[in-house]
Amino acid sequence: MSNDPDRECPVDGDIGQQEMVPSKRSAVLVDGVVLNGPTTDAKAGEKFVEEACRLIMEQVVSKATDISEKVCEWRPPEQLKQLLDLELRDTGEPHHRLLELCQDVIRYSVKTNHPRFFNQLYAGLDYYSLVARFMTEALNPSVYTYEVSPVFLLVEEAVLKKMIEFIGWKEGDGIFNPGGSVSNMYAMNLARYKYCPDIKEKGLSGLPRLILFTSAECHYSMKKAASFLGIGTENVCFVETDGRGKMMPEELERQIWQARKEGAAPFLVCATSGTTVLGAFDPLDEIAEVCERHGLWLHVDASWGGSALMSRKHRRLLHGIHRADSVAWNPHKMLMAGIQCCALLVKDKSDLLKKCYSAKASYLFQQDKFYDVSYDTGDKSIQCSRRPDAFKFWMTWKALGTVGLEERVNRALALSRYLVEEIKKREGFRLLMEPEYANICFWYIPPSLREMEEGPEFWEKLNLVAPAIKERMMKKGSLMLGYQPHRGKVNFFRQVVISPQVSREDMDFLLDEIDLLGRDM
Amino acid sequence: MSNDPDRECPVDGDIGQQEMVPSKRSAVLVDGVVLNGPTTDAKAGEKFVEEACRLIMEQVVSKATDISEKVCEWRPPEQLKQLLDLELRDTGEPHHRLLELCQDVIRYSVKTNHPRFFNQLYAGLDYYSLVARFMTEALNPSVYTYEVSPVFLLVEEAVLKKMIEFIGWKEGDGIFNPGGSVSNMYAMNLARYKYCPDIKEKGLSGLPRLILFTSAECHYSMKKAASFLGIGTENVCFVETDGRGKMMPEELERQIWQARKEGAAPFLVCATSGTTVLGAFDPLDEIAEVCERHGLWLHVDASWGGSALMSRKHRRLLHGIHRADSVAWNPHKMLMAGIQCCALLVKDKSDLLKKCYSAKASYLFQQDKFYDVSYDTGDKSIQCSRRPDAFKFWMTWKALGTVGLEERVNRALALSRYLVEEIKKREGFRLLMEPEYANICFWYIPPSLREMEEGPEFWEKLNLVAPAIKERMMKKGSLMLGYQPHRGKVNFFRQVVISPQVSREDMDFLLDEIDLLGRDM
Repeated sequence: MSNDPDRECPVDGDIGQQEMVPSKRSAVLVDGVVLNGPTTDAKAGEKFVEEACRLIMEQVVSKATDISEKVCEWRPPEQLKQLLDLELRDTGEPHHRLLELCQDVIRYSVKTNHPRFFNQLYAGLDYYSLVARFMTEALNPSVYTYEVSPVFLLVEEAVLKKMIEFIGWKEGDGIFNPGGSVSNMYAMNLARYKYCPDIKEKGLSGLPRLILFTSAECHYSMKKAASFLGIGTENVCFVETDGRGKMMPEELERQIWQARKEGAAPFLVCATSGTTVLGAFDPLDEIAEVCERHGLWLHVDASWGGSALMSRKHRRLLHGIHRADSVAWNPHKMLMAGIQCCALLVKDKSDLLKKCYSAKASYLFQQDKFYDVSYDTGDKSIQCSRRPDAFKFWMTWKALGTVGLEERVNRALALSRYLVEEIKKREGFRLLMEPEYANICFWYIPPSLREMEEGPEFWEKLNLVAPAIKERMMKKGSLMLGYQPHRGKVNFFRQVVISPQVSREDMDFLLDEIDLLGRDM
Repeated sequence: MSNDPDRECPVDGDIGQQEMVPSKRSAVLVDGVVLNGPTTDAKAGEKFVEEACRLIMEQVVSKATDISEKVCEWRPPEQLKQLLDLELRDTGEPHHRLLELCQDVIRYSVKTNHPRFFNQLYAGLDYYSLVARFMTEALNPSVYTYEVSPVFLLVEEAVLKKMIEFIGWKEGDGIFNPGGSVSNMYAMNLARYKYCPDIKEKGLSGLPRLILFTSAECHYSMKKAASFLGIGTENVCFVETDGRGKMMPEELERQIWQARKEGAAPFLVCATSGTTVLGAFDPLDEIAEVCERHGLWLHVDASWGGSALMSRKHRRLLHGIHRADSVAWNPHKMLMAGIQCCALLVKDKSDLLKKCYSAKASYLFQQDKFYDVSYDTGDKSIQCSRRPDAFKFWMTWKALGTVGLEERVNRALALSRYLVEEIKKREGFRLLMEPEYANICFWYIPPSLREMEEGPEFWEKLNLVAPAIKERMMKKGSLMLGYQPHRGKVNFFRQVVISPQVSREDMDFLLDEIDLLGRDM
């Protein structure tokens, strides 16, 4: 075992070229360690980084746009474990061996940049955000205080300000978080704090049952948040949606009355702009009416759909969003800022975010610093170390301008329209519903089922089709898209269009390929 | 305003070279958008990435080891805003302008890689983790399911397994999180779930007052966690510490009895291995005794001190850690994996983590996949998208081996010993206490105070010294280290030694420089 105290010390050569203790005659020795000079071989280290960068450029960046490459090189878990040398050992590996490992990691990783990767709500390669990401990895900042992260804190402020403008608020506050799920948690906690500030100190014990409302189509993070925050998943009230997946405001109001009658304490409504599966947008204006009538915090989970705000043509999908108290919006999805880039935006400007979250650590947020400590914004966060995620979005925005971002959104949605029309034209494809956004949900009905009556047997058999085609496409590596059953509907495909690298030809390929993979079923 | 519907569309040249719609004769037009072919100019994009990489290599990586460079190029917030072109506009910027922006970002960012950056609990440049980080930024994975992140999920499993081995558990479970603060929250929620699984569904309302115990020297995230989880900061019981900053087990036990008497429900003890300011290690064995006697979950926040486990010489600091139920350990601190790399490790192997956290989203964690879905570990997380943070630690471990990591820890602690002895020798420097770890806390007493009686006036004046020296060192850019007041002690410096790039010469420089900056005070 590696932590065995009797483990032998290696002879010099064994630990590779990485770190050698120089043997100087006038060495200062403490506890048997020579303390003179640095022990890192910077030259060798830099050379290694350069070689690896070359590999990354050749194997990842340059191939990102090449549709003749596979989307994935599928191996089942047990086999992949054999192929990769995962084990961590006492002694290190030399650089050439590490570069081989890097090559293997690249080879067997899914190419989420590939123009035919449609599996999640993010995809594609943005060169500008990539550069920003390389920069922050090299600079290794942590954005808690201005003294350590002057540039990145100012960048975050500038980006938040601009996002707030696009929501339609005159002013506001916000913070970048590790994920939309976490942003939703922030909002839930903030709404609770606003409802009863004492909870921060006293907790929920002995309080009436807090209850919140969200659509039956909401993201699963609402349940995770309610559980994590001690509210409990049973106190998440799922409001029924219409046929398109939109929350029904009259149902919302009915459930609020019902909850009140049962002695619960409503404090929050969470609407969704761009649901995960169907891409549905809740009617924000009508929901805002209900919230105002009942004095409830309105949070909009626009993690996915928020990017439509960039488009003058499509921002009507979020009509009424300026009436929200908080908004979650992930530029890492349709705006391609790279995992992760997620903002929580808050309308309040009375420092609610800070009051709710601050813990005033005296070793970090000293008040006797020589500069304006209002720039030390880290105490608004549940994190201590925090990554400068705003910067990558800033870089892309700088590069493309608002107009360029708008064009991306418009093009993704135009491609979605194209795909929808193609699905309607083609035999064996059936649309679940007209999409509002970039989620196109459809079934592929193989020839053997096309004449069958649509009874239980038909649906049972159709349910097996998408998983079987998915298996084939992954083993072939030709494309990746998601499938799922959803609220009484059997397994269907969900195609998501994002990247400007994707073209009409890829949409045609998608349908051809599904047909090719499934026509014998 | 940019989202003005009347905003004019730019003429072609305005949007820069980034994205142009090709004008083809047989173009497919939908909603006025040409859908043929990709719209990204991949060649130009790749060239931009290459140029930026060169800049990063020259300006960040190569200079990382150069002590003649400044640690920071200080500008006050308002001035820095003028210097940086932060504003986001309708139209984009050309590549040469973007590269200038990158240069400015680098120039005014703090060089956390610099051998004389001692300001936080992380520092220095690790070439191996840097390569891993470049790779993951280029590959842009999200580790929720095996189908999307096969390699990174297996890597995470391998790293967790090894960390568990070093804790001394036979088996266990775990997950990488965005920060030690978040890991502490996970542990708190997990302990609560174990105490009463119903809380996940029912919440805390109507339950007895849950209470937890931690040391008065713990990280501020314990308060943040209690507040966020709905427990309330008043239900965090801060146990008194001894003169070295270690929790006193007899005090812990007394407080548990006291809480019980008051009708509260104790459920968790959080010990700290390596406190933030003093670097103190709580006596885990004795605390474990108390926890076992009272049936309480023992969480160890070893975010900072966990890395001592890698050293056969120093792992005794965490003696008894194998008796913990959960451990937070951040390889991004002393093991230099880069912000962020933080594991929560859990002794339980009955799937407690999954039971506590899962929400079973049917669009992501389908059960009818064609491979073993036990590898889809994302549902253990509060996040949906999640970064592959284990990979960068894996790469460094692969490169250095356990022996190389051990040497780093040993060297950092030997350098700390050296600094302590130097402080003792030098006039005008006074140690707060003998350190156990890599936090060396000391006062600099300027000549004017050296003959003064140590009464209130002395301490009042001494309190102003560290902030004033800090201001001077930042404006000069010669080094960065932290200061703070702490539990009745006036402002003192906290020197933290981590990077193998740091040498005895840097320790000497540190003391010389402080004396130089402060001798006229």
